[in-house]
Amino acid sequence: MLEDKNQERTSLEELGEFGLIEHLTKNFKLNQPSSLIGVGDDAAVMDYEGKKTIVSTDMLVEGVHFDLSYMPLKHLGYKSVMVNLSDIYAMNAMATQVTVSLAISNRFPLEALEEFYEGVALACKLYNVDLVGGDTTSSTRGMIVSVTALGAANENDIVYRKGSRPNDLLVVTGDLGGAYLGLQVLKREKEVFKVNPNSQPDLEPYSYIVERQLKPEARKDIVDLLKKLEVKPTSMIDISDGLSSEVMHLCKHSEVGCNVFEDKIPLDPTVISASEEFKMDSTMIAMSGGEDYELLFTIDQADFPKIKGNPNLTVIGHMTEKSEGVHLITRAETKIPITAQGWNSFNENQ
Amino acid sequence: MLEDKNQERTSLEELGEFGLIEHLTKNFKLNQPSSLIGVGDDAAVMDYEGKKTIVSTDMLVEGVHFDLSYMPLKHLGYKSVMVNLSDIYAMNAMATQVTVSLAISNRFPLEALEEFYEGVALACKLYNVDLVGGDTTSSTRGMIVSVTALGAANENDIVYRKGSRPNDLLVVTGDLGGAYLGLQVLKREKEVFKVNPNSQPDLEPYSYIVERQLKPEARKDIVDLLKKLEVKPTSMIDISDGLSSEVMHLCKHSEVGCNVFEDKIPLDPTVISASEEFKMDSTMIAMSGGEDYELLFTIDQADFPKIKGNPNLTVIGHMTEKSEGVHLITRAETKIPITAQGWNSFNENQ
Repeated sequence: MLEDKNQERTSLEELGEFGLIEHLTKNFKLNQPSSLIGVGDDAAVMDYEGKKTIVSTDMLVEGVHFDLSYMPLKHLGYKSVMVNLSDIYAMNAMATQVTVSLAISNRFPLEALEEFYEGVALACKLYNVDLVGGDTTSSTRGMIVSVTALGAANENDIVYRKGSRPNDLLVVTGDLGGAYLGLQVLKREKEVFKVNPNSQPDLEPYSYIVERQLKPEARKDIVDLLKKLEVKPTSMIDISDGLSSEVMHLCKHSEVGCNVFEDKIPLDPTVISASEEFKMDSTMIAMSGGEDYELLFTIDQADFPKIKGNPNLTVIGHMTEKSEGVHLITRAETKIPITAQGWNSFNENQ
Repeated sequence: MLEDKNQERTSLEELGEFGLIEHLTKNFKLNQPSSLIGVGDDAAVMDYEGKKTIVSTDMLVEGVHFDLSYMPLKHLGYKSVMVNLSDIYAMNAMATQVTVSLAISNRFPLEALEEFYEGVALACKLYNVDLVGGDTTSSTRGMIVSVTALGAANENDIVYRKGSRPNDLLVVTGDLGGAYLGLQVLKREKEVFKVNPNSQPDLEPYSYIVERQLKPEARKDIVDLLKKLEVKPTSMIDISDGLSSEVMHLCKHSEVGCNVFEDKIPLDPTVISASEEFKMDSTMIAMSGGEDYELLFTIDQADFPKIKGNPNLTVIGHMTEKSEGVHLITRAETKIPITAQGWNSFNENQ
């Protein structure tokens, strides 16, 4: 007897557009005091009680930003939210709500979307944000995710890309390069799998960097930490495209120059060993890799004692006069001009 | 000598992701007092000064929601904004900001995106909303637009889908069915063009319905009008999917029934003549066509004198007890149950 392989797959046509949204969002509760009305009307209603509203939006495209052959849908849901929360935290604000829109082809059964929303739900729960809206529609091919995050902050707490001054210290959170190398490991395993579908990949030695790629964490904890340490950065940005391009953004908006010291860039031991394995330069990866979702900020030198020794924060350089330019000071004490080599979505994936 | 056909086409790779966003948004000014910081940082910052914040988001997919062979990019930019503003007005709120995200394949030159943003700019100008953010990325195929609209309202002014009571009057703005028939005309011309590329379509007799499809207008004027007339609807929704499904939404959320009178449904003469030409039933088109972006709302009977005779507003029915169900009363006085036959994006475009 032939087995019905689709027995646990519910087609999207059965549910229809309205049924689908209702089904996928029915278990999302509103927890933020500012969320008055969520999914289910023409629009959501929020009340920030005198605080400023912060908004950020990002789009993720299958085949460009993610590959479902190694990105589980639950992770994709989680990461889609993280990417946006990261932008809100980079303003030194607290994220409060998200809207999640999806375009998907009919090759996805309902169960796949449920998995995606499980990831969204987990992100919302862990980061205490409410899902308050979204749109679900069909695509002719592939999956596209668009997330908008809303946040709140007191006016005086908000930190912009501009505001940095010469002699400010340049600080980065966590460590860099892991997400990019994690992607290289996953891509390599995919190629091995193509040649030998029976191969069992041993990702154990790479678990840290693979997790950095598949399940990045936005640095909400840093916004809390800075408040606790009573440090307000003079400028801040999140690292989505690689250290180089983020340093360039801060310098451009603040009209300053910068010296970044190669030997100060924080690298996890796994990043160093995987770089060697892939015959890549670990500094280059940290500078250009992207997707680490760490925060990069500048502080007044007077605040240095407050952050000194904190394991989450590493001083990697200092700002200079604009005329001095933007440079990487290598271990050999050579001065190399930094150019934006961040991930450029229009060059790749032709 | 061979002509370089691409002489006025600037490739997106030349500009890169950052240059592109900057280029496309550089002429957008912030006009809303609530827009503090727009495009250019990790997120936008808004201040609604005690008013509630309203948020809505929608995604438009090439090949599903639009066909670039008859939808000029400028119109697409305009319509993408309208679709979202319409949701904000349906809450009886004023739209204040939008974010616009685009995924596009490299087949589009910069000039095409500029055209799209011209439409966005025109919509923003005419409806007095600010573009404050967005994302521009590549897609493996086709174009996807995701817009999020933000608005503001005093708590007491907000109108939801719920709130309607038995005996309330059901009111619709403008007229219905035009957008759907406009699409039929455009589709027919496309087929004619395929057979004979030299044919010159005469769209003049169809200009009203073609414009309803290509350049819909969200009913901001109605929010102003209702305020002026001192009428606060008991429930409201915008007509994006056709009258049937919107009536069903109001009834479901308000837990009431409804009688809609076929002979009261407002139809433009062009809709009636085009329906005959296409051998389609004009009532069916108004009920199921969608994309008219009119507003559908209910009012207390006591408010009827305030709206009576207004050329923008037509009473098309009344709400009943839930147990009486949702019905269309035909010209022949037959009672037909209304079922949601709105446009279902998962059934079409397989």
